[in-house]
Amino acid sequence: MYRTHNCGELTAQNIGQEVTLSGWVQKIRNKGKMIWLDLRDRYGITQIIFEENITDTKVFEDAQKLGREFVIKITGEVIERIAKNPKITTGDIEIKISNLEVLNASSTPPFTIEDESDGGDEIRMKYRYLDLRRNPMQQKMILRHEIAQEVRRYLSDQKFLEIETPYLIKSTPEGARDFVVPSRMNKGQFYALPQSPQTFKQLLMISGYDRYFQVVKCFRDEDLRADRQPEFTQIDCEMAFVEQDDILKNFEGMAKHLFKKVKNIDFDYNFPRMPYSEAMRLYGSDKPDIRFGMTFVELKKETDKKEFVVFNSAEYVAGICATGLASYSRKELDKLVKFVQKPQVGAKGLVYVKYNEDGSFKSSVDKFYDETDLKSWAEKMDAKPGDLLLILAGDTAATQSALNDLRLEMGDRLGLRDPNQFSPMWVVDFPLLEWDEEGKRFHAMHHPFTSPKKEDMVMIHNEPGKVRANAYDLVINGVEIGGGSIRIHDRDLQKTMFKALGFTDEEAQEQFGFLMDAFKYGAPPHGGIALGFDRLVAMFAGIESIRDVIAFPKNNSGRDMMIDSPSTIDLTQLDELNLRMK
Amino acid sequence: MYRTHNCGELTAQNIGQEVTLSGWVQKIRNKGKMIWLDLRDRYGITQIIFEENITDTKVFEDAQKLGREFVIKITGEVIERIAKNPKITTGDIEIKISNLEVLNASSTPPFTIEDESDGGDEIRMKYRYLDLRRNPMQQKMILRHEIAQEVRRYLSDQKFLEIETPYLIKSTPEGARDFVVPSRMNKGQFYALPQSPQTFKQLLMISGYDRYFQVVKCFRDEDLRADRQPEFTQIDCEMAFVEQDDILKNFEGMAKHLFKKVKNIDFDYNFPRMPYSEAMRLYGSDKPDIRFGMTFVELKKETDKKEFVVFNSAEYVAGICATGLASYSRKELDKLVKFVQKPQVGAKGLVYVKYNEDGSFKSSVDKFYDETDLKSWAEKMDAKPGDLLLILAGDTAATQSALNDLRLEMGDRLGLRDPNQFSPMWVVDFPLLEWDEEGKRFHAMHHPFTSPKKEDMVMIHNEPGKVRANAYDLVINGVEIGGGSIRIHDRDLQKTMFKALGFTDEEAQEQFGFLMDAFKYGAPPHGGIALGFDRLVAMFAGIESIRDVIAFPKNNSGRDMMIDSPSTIDLTQLDELNLRMK
Repeated sequence: MYRTHNCGELTAQNIGQEVTLSGWVQKIRNKGKMIWLDLRDRYGITQIIFEENITDTKVFEDAQKLGREFVIKITGEVIERIAKNPKITTGDIEIKISNLEVLNASSTPPFTIEDESDGGDEIRMKYRYLDLRRNPMQQKMILRHEIAQEVRRYLSDQKFLEIETPYLIKSTPEGARDFVVPSRMNKGQFYALPQSPQTFKQLLMISGYDRYFQVVKCFRDEDLRADRQPEFTQIDCEMAFVEQDDILKNFEGMAKHLFKKVKNIDFDYNFPRMPYSEAMRLYGSDKPDIRFGMTFVELKKETDKKEFVVFNSAEYVAGICATGLASYSRKELDKLVKFVQKPQVGAKGLVYVKYNEDGSFKSSVDKFYDETDLKSWAEKMDAKPGDLLLILAGDTAATQSALNDLRLEMGDRLGLRDPNQFSPMWVVDFPLLEWDEEGKRFHAMHHPFTSPKKEDMVMIHNEPGKVRANAYDLVINGVEIGGGSIRIHDRDLQKTMFKALGFTDEEAQEQFGFLMDAFKYGAPPHGGIALGFDRLVAMFAGIESIRDVIAFPKNNSGRDMMIDSPSTIDLTQLDELNLRMK
Repeated sequence: MYRTHNCGELTAQNIGQEVTLSGWVQKIRNKGKMIWLDLRDRYGITQIIFEENITDTKVFEDAQKLGREFVIKITGEVIERIAKNPKITTGDIEIKISNLEVLNASSTPPFTIEDESDGGDEIRMKYRYLDLRRNPMQQKMILRHEIAQEVRRYLSDQKFLEIETPYLIKSTPEGARDFVVPSRMNKGQFYALPQSPQTFKQLLMISGYDRYFQVVKCFRDEDLRADRQPEFTQIDCEMAFVEQDDILKNFEGMAKHLFKKVKNIDFDYNFPRMPYSEAMRLYGSDKPDIRFGMTFVELKKETDKKEFVVFNSAEYVAGICATGLASYSRKELDKLVKFVQKPQVGAKGLVYVKYNEDGSFKSSVDKFYDETDLKSWAEKMDAKPGDLLLILAGDTAATQSALNDLRLEMGDRLGLRDPNQFSPMWVVDFPLLEWDEEGKRFHAMHHPFTSPKKEDMVMIHNEPGKVRANAYDLVINGVEIGGGSIRIHDRDLQKTMFKALGFTDEEAQEQFGFLMDAFKYGAPPHGGIALGFDRLVAMFAGIESIRDVIAFPKNNSGRDMMIDSPSTIDLTQLDELNLRMK
């Protein structure tokens, strides 16, 4: 037997008991006649004490040879500690050791196993199994486990059935690039790994399962960014006989359940619902961070009166009001100019207007606009003396995007983005289609199965870009946590959609024939949502990178640094698959 | 709003209420002036009634056009039914319809959506979404959901953490064939899909997670048999600081929990534990069906006394006693001979001995053995007058296997294999290695990480086949539900094992270097188990094929008949992957 207790449970209640513990050596303090050892496992830390002339001589000697991260088993008596440590649950006691067994020695780890490690990113990725030993990593894995269990509990209680859909499916050119899997038994043919179980969950609705969910891995062979992984986890859900409102209510309920269970936060209000058009107008983003205001104010009309060619030639002029920052120095303002000019932000320049405490104005466009002009802007922007107005101009989409970046930056500077405050919301009424400048055609903004708003269908041929969809996103603190839609359940409407997306009838049949066929046999109205589980956990953990909430993530080249994968395979394996390298 | 209630919940309590229901048309009985319609959803069936001159004329007319599997929405009043149906929960009421809306029409399905469908296997696979509508399929999916939730609940309560391991991992030639995934970003390199998360769960133990589980898809590119799928689901578990007994107790606890929750069956005894050698001796199988006796009795010594060359030249002679079957006719005995001679069973012939009710003997070897001989066999086999002795002879392994098949066949004939009776057991002390006749080398019977029994290690070089492992299987009703082992946690022992398995140091380092490295940094003693989730569900469902408990299975050629996958992909996709067809 390796242990009678774990390293996190002994308290004053256990004093006098003989116990056996196993774990890792976290720390040794050797004072010559006395040795204290911190023994660690997943559950906590227990202090072990060795005393010269009291502890068995062999045990005392063996203790000298222990090093960090050795795995040991000890037996001893629980005694009261003189210098108590109120910070840990076992802080009232220590173990007077009587027996010591080294279960496994350890080389010195390449970095320290502490809350703040001295290891760089790369080495911690290579030795991920050691990085995962650190308490902050462990807390994130435990949090992930808890959220997963609560998600299942909530949905299961709501009569959702967890149904597994296949991982070896069929490649479709729509959407992101698929990972493919050559078939040995069907030479020349390939499976694809699912980007999502979309069509399968729709089929399950057609099969009458009514409420489906799955916590499921999905795959996208995309060029990776910091918050993207080639494999990621999705909470995938679908419901039949529902309208948009039913789905929003149900998953708002789930979000509230998770906030309550995981964070002990009560939401006693309905999450606000904001149309896409308004989100773009006020925040320049379809995932606004509404923890703070600083909403966009359009100034095109106000700025057009004078000879400032930058504004006059711009399609769009808008600004935000940064409360209390009129005192910004030249240097600070220059930094903001540099910020908006970064390639990721992409603005050409920045116009500022200081609304000084004394009521006067100072701006970077004083040459063109007088105090009356600036005052009228300030009034429109609801600015007070002491505030700083920041204005961008240019093409609408690009400028909205840049101003969104600037707003978030100013939110950070003003401390308005507290990771412990949560402001969830729904963005609704997304456009059905978006124009792909490169391919010179419309793409489905959500996916080709999303239903259009009935009242907008008159525009599908002449103004397809204006047709709104029954599509919605759950956004928390500026992060898109999930998105979904009411699906098309009518075969003819689905055909029209495929056509609008540039599919020929043959392509539609080839790729989605089984779904089109299924629509023939009594498809119910249905809709659903998919939540990014990695992002959800990261959000609850108060961090930005999803990599830190994934046990074994890949780096930006899609490599697993620890197992050194992908790797070459035997030629015989390639032969069996009827493949060769080009 | 599509419904106020579902089709399974209205009772006499609701009489007088106006309700809205949505669902599928299960059945229509049109008696001219009266029409009864059964409306179906996942939750049940509710009867709708239309009456000429009472029901709105338009609604009554529309009802004439409905067909099977139409999706409709109806509104009406709950009224008491005259001819009550006690078989269904809604049998006391019916709905007097006031409004009817066709949500979606349906073509006539290619087979009937009834408990017993008229569709063949192939067509039901192609239209799997319709097959899944049938109640028996739905019950299996619901059962699967329930077992999955209970597994998670039990393990989570036992402090196991569900931790997701990656799907894009590294190919290793050991074990079955991997499915591989070409990497676009790392040209010429491949990921592999996991055959199990084995190494990752061991790393998690080294990371200190103590108790891990995952309900996870695994992949094997093997030639398929009836009960194999290229992708299957495993309940994968690992524990640190445990011995074999800890794991057996924990997962026996889980099995009992599931039997209680899902089947309401209490096991008030410990599952028997049988060494592998005894399982082979008594049942000729490492997964004995112990719902019934009929154990093997070896007769080599008893049969060697006479001139019967078949027995005398055989390495192994053994028989079973089929209670009360001495009355079998010539024809029935011939059928048994044919049974054992089937290629899947593979025996050359069958010797029978009838122990007649009158105490006399009649056998197929009367030429060689007299009544005294036969009587001595009968005594050794504990046979009574009226019993039938069935004896096979040949090489030990092949004959044990054939006699096992015969025993199961006789168990079926005698009705001793009741699918509602469950006899779980542990098979323990498996051999560490098994001889691969083809490759002329030893393979790991479980996997290369399984620890040998310490006391057997003296034989590792001279008699490696005799070394037993700390390995165990959970067997229920003759089905291997799961298996596991205590792992090696010592780097040197792991090196010895790789060597015994014919790995060079380079190969071991190349394939499992990360694990060998991890062993350097304080690996705790650990072990685990993996349960076949599909088989577990099939066992609870009382069926043999795992295909029926998988929502979207593949056929024996690894094809998904419904989505028609695998399929060809674009040449440009192959180009991007730097591949071409041979």
